[in-house]
Amino acid sequence: MVGIWLENQHISVREDLAEPVPANGEALVKMRMAGICATDLELIQGYYPFTGVIGHEFVGEIIRADAQPARIGERVVGEINARCGHCTECRAGRVNHCRNRTVLGIVARNGCFAEYLVLPIENLIPVPDRIPDEQAVFTEPLAAALEIQEQVEVRPRDRVLVIGAGRLGQLIAQTLRLTGCELRVIARHANQRALLNSQGIAVLDENQIPDRAADIVVEATGSQSGYEAARRAVRPGGTIVLKSTYRGELSANFSAIVVDEITLVGSRCGPFQPALRLLAENLVDPVPLIVGRFSFRDGLAGFEHARQPGGLKVILTPDGR
Amino acid sequence: MVGIWLENQHISVREDLAEPVPANGEALVKMRMAGICATDLELIQGYYPFTGVIGHEFVGEIIRADAQPARIGERVVGEINARCGHCTECRAGRVNHCRNRTVLGIVARNGCFAEYLVLPIENLIPVPDRIPDEQAVFTEPLAAALEIQEQVEVRPRDRVLVIGAGRLGQLIAQTLRLTGCELRVIARHANQRALLNSQGIAVLDENQIPDRAADIVVEATGSQSGYEAARRAVRPGGTIVLKSTYRGELSANFSAIVVDEITLVGSRCGPFQPALRLLAENLVDPVPLIVGRFSFRDGLAGFEHARQPGGLKVILTPDGR
Repeated sequence: MVGIWLENQHISVREDLAEPVPANGEALVKMRMAGICATDLELIQGYYPFTGVIGHEFVGEIIRADAQPARIGERVVGEINARCGHCTECRAGRVNHCRNRTVLGIVARNGCFAEYLVLPIENLIPVPDRIPDEQAVFTEPLAAALEIQEQVEVRPRDRVLVIGAGRLGQLIAQTLRLTGCELRVIARHANQRALLNSQGIAVLDENQIPDRAADIVVEATGSQSGYEAARRAVRPGGTIVLKSTYRGELSANFSAIVVDEITLVGSRCGPFQPALRLLAENLVDPVPLIVGRFSFRDGLAGFEHARQPGGLKVILTPDGR
Repeated sequence: MVGIWLENQHISVREDLAEPVPANGEALVKMRMAGICATDLELIQGYYPFTGVIGHEFVGEIIRADAQPARIGERVVGEINARCGHCTECRAGRVNHCRNRTVLGIVARNGCFAEYLVLPIENLIPVPDRIPDEQAVFTEPLAAALEIQEQVEVRPRDRVLVIGAGRLGQLIAQTLRLTGCELRVIARHANQRALLNSQGIAVLDENQIPDRAADIVVEATGSQSGYEAARRAVRPGGTIVLKSTYRGELSANFSAIVVDEITLVGSRCGPFQPALRLLAENLVDPVPLIVGRFSFRDGLAGFEHARQPGGLKVILTPDGR
């Protein structure tokens, strides 16, 4: 089958990949549509030493499911963390933190930038008919955006600042907007600003960041300068959500965090069902984020497109449509 | 009057200090007993560029209070942050984070290692008769320990690890013990361990820190190695409370904080009334922490004593009794 292969920080299109064979409890999924995420770009830069098919945002169709054959034909999205089921974290119900987890296209499990993938059938969640593929493909990053509200109480009166308006920042802004909070987003690029403006979301320049005036800051740039901006913007006693991975170690003034009683919250994968509910009700609209659509065969061009400054969502499909 | 003066990271006993004159809304307090805190030792090492009388843990007696003369004669402890009353933080009720605050013996306000001090009368809290001076002098650090539970929900089933068993770590352990949580404390020195054992608190060696097994870790050492131990000990999705100031910048792997969804909580000053309630009910017992008692005149010897490895609470009084 055709797929995009990562090895030694280098990606290539391969046509000789073996179609995956589902193990016990796994289902075989035929890809319909997949999305390129910042994590994919970081994997190529060596964020994590992964070798295999990359990609973890997808919508597909179950074509084999020995454990639950009734599910064949279902259109599904997939939770990307596959648990072991018996470690301390799994037993405590924190399956996304399973100590032996494999992660779709990220850790020890081939991903979704290929014609077929396998995942445990328990990870596959049916997509309601009224959600088209173009929306469903955003379920995974939208769930990650919603994880913020699983971890931090966002109240209607809160002043919330999102730093970074790329793929994930846009979805974060769209979900936070629904709380009624006083939301502002730092956006660097004109296309990012236009998208936010079209949703009525207030946009600020980097040099307009209010000093110690935000109750909650979401740092979605993954850069030292983004963290420093978050630190300046948050009020004493406020919360900074770290919603992006960082290259290398970050340096931080922990004494000032103590004196100002700041809370830092690391935030990763989130809940799929709420994401699907928001999509089904059109309460978020991710489709305008799509800036390009490529076939797996043209995947490298897709990656080039995604890598542009201000680049938003690039979609990959088996046939480029 | 006699007092201990800090200037250019050097302390000296001075006998020529002018008795302070209360400003509007302030009261004059005659010192009964004061305690040396790790922050005092850090101030001498240049943690913050303060010049003046140091010290911020005390119990004293109001001897002048023009605004509320009925309070003359009250035995009191004192909140150390004096607010401006009109900045954003004050108006929001976060007076400990007042942007223009002075802080007793730390920021722009002479402290308590002297025969007299002044503080706003609203900062002075009466001490119930049944709490002797030897206990009341611990109100401020005990309040700081309780701040943890103001910020983080500690549940009876939680596995809680305290790293560091010095002055503050001991009080933290005593307050956390009251929650019924599964408490363990890393203590380096024999005297620290003995104190914890006497309270039935489980003690661990540094090399016994369980890997990713604590729901909540309180870092009370203020060192990079303490933070790293906390990071190893906390479970995915768990919380690290930073309860000590750090010299310089700390380096941290923020990507791992994101992947493991760790929450870091900076924690400083806490509520006095709950501290007084615990003292009044003998639910905590700080007196065994006292390892020495010196007069202000012999204050430098007191500081020497406090600086010993494993050093616990050194008390200073006007007459050394």
